[in-house]
Amino acid sequence: MTTTALTPHPLVAGGARARSLVRVGEHFVGAGTFSLVAGPCAVETPEQLAAACEAAVAAGATMLRGDLYKHRTSPYSFQGLGSGGVAMVAEQRARFGLPWVAEVLDVQHLDVVADVVDVLRVGARNMQNFELLRACGQTGKPVMIKRGMSATVEEWLLAAEYVAHAGSLDIILCERGIRTFEPSTRNTLDLSAVVVAQERSHLPVIVDPSHGTGARSLVAPMALAAIAAGADGIMVDVHARPETALCDGPQALLPDEVGTLGARLRELAVWCGRQVEPTDLPDEELEPT
Amino acid sequence: MTTTALTPHPLVAGGARARSLVRVGEHFVGAGTFSLVAGPCAVETPEQLAAACEAAVAAGATMLRGDLYKHRTSPYSFQGLGSGGVAMVAEQRARFGLPWVAEVLDVQHLDVVADVVDVLRVGARNMQNFELLRACGQTGKPVMIKRGMSATVEEWLLAAEYVAHAGSLDIILCERGIRTFEPSTRNTLDLSAVVVAQERSHLPVIVDPSHGTGARSLVAPMALAAIAAGADGIMVDVHARPETALCDGPQALLPDEVGTLGARLRELAVWCGRQVEPTDLPDEELEPT
Amino acid sequence: MTTTALTPHPLVAGGARARSLVRVGEHFVGAGTFSLVAGPCAVETPEQLAAACEAAVAAGATMLRGDLYKHRTSPYSFQGLGSGGVAMVAEQRARFGLPWVAEVLDVQHLDVVADVVDVLRVGARNMQNFELLRACGQTGKPVMIKRGMSATVEEWLLAAEYVAHAGSLDIILCERGIRTFEPSTRNTLDLSAVVVAQERSHLPVIVDPSHGTGARSLVAPMALAAIAAGADGIMVDVHARPETALCDGPQALLPDEVGTLGARLRELAVWCGRQVEPTDLPDEELEPT
Amino acid sequence: MTTTALTPHPLVAGGARARSLVRVGEHFVGAGTFSLVAGPCAVETPEQLAAACEAAVAAGATMLRGDLYKHRTSPYSFQGLGSGGVAMVAEQRARFGLPWVAEVLDVQHLDVVADVVDVLRVGARNMQNFELLRACGQTGKPVMIKRGMSATVEEWLLAAEYVAHAGSLDIILCERGIRTFEPSTRNTLDLSAVVVAQERSHLPVIVDPSHGTGARSLVAPMALAAIAAGADGIMVDVHARPETALCDGPQALLPDEVGTLGARLRELAVWCGRQVEPTDLPDEELEPT
Repeated sequence: MTTTALTPHPLVAGGARARSLVRVGEHFVGAGTFSLVAGPCAVETPEQLAAACEAAVAAGATMLRGDLYKHRTSPYSFQGLGSGGVAMVAEQRARFGLPWVAEVLDVQHLDVVADVVDVLRVGARNMQNFELLRACGQTGKPVMIKRGMSATVEEWLLAAEYVAHAGSLDIILCERGIRTFEPSTRNTLDLSAVVVAQERSHLPVIVDPSHGTGARSLVAPMALAAIAAGADGIMVDVHARPETALCDGPQALLPDEVGTLGARLRELAVWCGRQVEPTDLPDEELEPT
Repeated sequence: MTTTALTPHPLVAGGARARSLVRVGEHFVGAGTFSLVAGPCAVETPEQLAAACEAAVAAGATMLRGDLYKHRTSPYSFQGLGSGGVAMVAEQRARFGLPWVAEVLDVQHLDVVADVVDVLRVGARNMQNFELLRACGQTGKPVMIKRGMSATVEEWLLAAEYVAHAGSLDIILCERGIRTFEPSTRNTLDLSAVVVAQERSHLPVIVDPSHGTGARSLVAPMALAAIAAGADGIMVDVHARPETALCDGPQALLPDEVGTLGARLRELAVWCGRQVEPTDLPDEELEPT
Repeated sequence: MTTTALTPHPLVAGGARARSLVRVGEHFVGAGTFSLVAGPCAVETPEQLAAACEAAVAAGATMLRGDLYKHRTSPYSFQGLGSGGVAMVAEQRARFGLPWVAEVLDVQHLDVVADVVDVLRVGARNMQNFELLRACGQTGKPVMIKRGMSATVEEWLLAAEYVAHAGSLDIILCERGIRTFEPSTRNTLDLSAVVVAQERSHLPVIVDPSHGTGARSLVAPMALAAIAAGADGIMVDVHARPETALCDGPQALLPDEVGTLGARLRELAVWCGRQVEPTDLPDEELEPT
Repeated sequence: MTTTALTPHPLVAGGARARSLVRVGEHFVGAGTFSLVAGPCAVETPEQLAAACEAAVAAGATMLRGDLYKHRTSPYSFQGLGSGGVAMVAEQRARFGLPWVAEVLDVQHLDVVADVVDVLRVGARNMQNFELLRACGQTGKPVMIKRGMSATVEEWLLAAEYVAHAGSLDIILCERGIRTFEPSTRNTLDLSAVVVAQERSHLPVIVDPSHGTGARSLVAPMALAAIAAGADGIMVDVHARPETALCDGPQALLPDEVGTLGARLRELAVWCGRQVEPTDLPDEELEPT
């Protein structure tokens, strides 16, 4: 295909090709759909995880999140429960029957999370950890790739190409803000990059306004903005008691906040022409060929 | 007021104070309203200006734009018609009875445009041209201040404070993208800055997705995103034959595109709870006191 | 000339053309020379100005600085003495017989400073205030153009082209740091831009490590680095009592510090092959034609 | 210690503590010394490697470089010879008796390079690959940490703290340019960060002007600038036929260029008070305790 041949990332390139749908459990992520990934930033305790998941599900989450491994700037910060949290995740995942999204920091984590994580997330700091991308691409599970904090859209798509090249096209991109001079937000959420990534690739693109702004009051406005811009879904942090969170409390939504936001997002997604109810398998699955 | 005393920009500070409405002719810009400023980037010819204004009005514009003076990076680029374009602006302004928004680059331009321009715009490159801000603030006309391409939100509000300090609180902020490392867009439109500016000041904030992205295909998605995020209005470039434009053709919407976008924006603004029809004077004007 | 024709800024373009020397009083700024501009950030009092100038001269300054108009982010900050400081400048300029460098913020300032300022400086925030650049270029005085805080080298050279186009090639570029995400310095001094600007234009380029770093302890290392990289000179802030300075005290060198630095810089400049003693007029002045 | 207690990175914190010397073979890197790391970007062929090493040694290199694993943005770019290049490295390392510096991308590479690499380099894209940092810190070999392309100095020091926390204080920091809006250089080399990192930690800091600028003509000026600013050493790419290089040819110095630069750097380092001849072990090794 001509378009493909001219791009530096032929496997994920867009153009005439139909935009892809990535199947996650019974759900699809991508063109014409709406995904809401919600849950705590990190798995902390059974109670904390349960409360956050209840709020997420009540808000209409299509996937749950909650990390076992945290990528922390300081070695003295909470690093996640690791294998110690697997049983807690397994419990909530079974309880609600929803797919689980969680970060892997290292190839060795792939085995630990194999039974409980449905979507492997590669974090912003690892966007160019190509060994990790390759290993994720070989698992057969969908891979979510967060944009690096100073990565161009082209570099982001090339990171996806590493996964594709390793064997999997079940890739979801996630915009989470870039680093600029502006100090009033933790990062600068770059929504035009969502549109550009959708133009230049066939991959679904979702947005994380929690990490993208770092501030609770900005999460809902930016989540709505992301859907209006055409994002295929939203991922948000939820915590019932954010003041006690071991990680990123100031950006976590409270249960009632995520409930209100979920309803608004679904309404807006319908207005934007998306199929919002959990989809059954389409007659013929769209996939890049 | 406590909030005011603690801010470095007491006259424009937000907090407990009601968000202000800026009156422009028969219209109001600010909380609860929706503004659409549309027209060509620059005034070129009577025919070009007429065609763009017709499209803008058909799209539901509440104000028209079209600059007489252009701020060009190169001295060899088209610099605008200057006083030679005043009659053309006067004609279209009278024809449609809508307020006109145009940039002033220098104190001397204030006299030239006095009879035809209703909102004085200070461009991104002049955001910290404090002599110009002061002079605009003394005219009694509303002043629109574009965010500098590497200005923090605090610096933007301090630029507004210069205008306020010079005597006028009729100030409209306009986000138009910041400079980052990302090359796929001309600038990176920073929508979270809109929300932050609204939290930290009582001023209306609109968004210019044309200059903010530099690419026609991104204008509509980012305009919708801006309204969903809470922006008080949108400003877009329109040109009937953008391939012949003397300035910024690649970002100008075609007449039918702006028509479609205008309708979508109004629908979305209604969904967001804004009063979209041209407002009559409210019984009691909200203003910061 | 081919090189010239291909550049967007033909009058200031480099290439085969000899790099220019800008005459300022009895001194020359440019290729093969070494300039040290020193003095207070702002003119405050006769005593403050005298003490700073004494230290600057003792340190080997070839030009003195001290601004009458300050470009302040806040309207509530000290804005400079304006015309009230002209007599103080005149006194020190006469006392030491050295050229004076000072910022002009507005076309109207050109008359006020006409008798006491030898080099008109256009600040970073005004780098694209093209009306001001044109007016400066028409005065016949040398013009120093600071790089805008988010200006590319090409935009900086185009700002110089505005001055050249207005009639003057006596232009000195000044790098003063760009805006990045790094919070440990006020700006990020971009020394590779000095080399690039010298490759792409025939203009002298000096460096301001005081504003470029914002921190006293970084001024000397970065000044030395700038000369080693090939900068044609250095501009530094000096204040005898920086803790009382009305503007930018934390970055001002103390008298003994500037003395030590001046001696080191001259030694390094000699090692770099520069003619460091105040030059007499060369037999035949190099100038771009 | 008070200083330590107040910093977020107590093991690498500076302050009253003496700056550390890192022993690499017979050489020391750190305060009062001068290091020159030179060689090809990547190991390609025996002939290419030999020619580059000869030039590096003739230029006075104190360590050699040449990577077996390359961190490439695209999966279709040359990824390095991997284990296939080990014998070539072993040959040149034995031939010249100098320590070898090379990048490791993954924990698995540590075994492959164990016998031939003396300093493990963690690349900019892996600066926050904390698993890799920990694993390197446990090897007992010196670890060189490149600054991430959008990492603050504090984040860079925290990456070093991960290595220190894993057991090793033999850490060398390497500034290699940050990502900004400026397109004329591949990155913006941030020399003030070198000084800040030396103030805030006891670690040696070297500079890579090859990757930091991406342009051959900028390497020598920026290398000299780095030493003048106080950097403890320089790392440069060398290639005898850069037009045929499989990686980063445009930034590689030619043999005669690196020879000239090496001599200039040593002269400048002496002028800066550094001990330039290969040092014997000092009577009493300075080390943080």
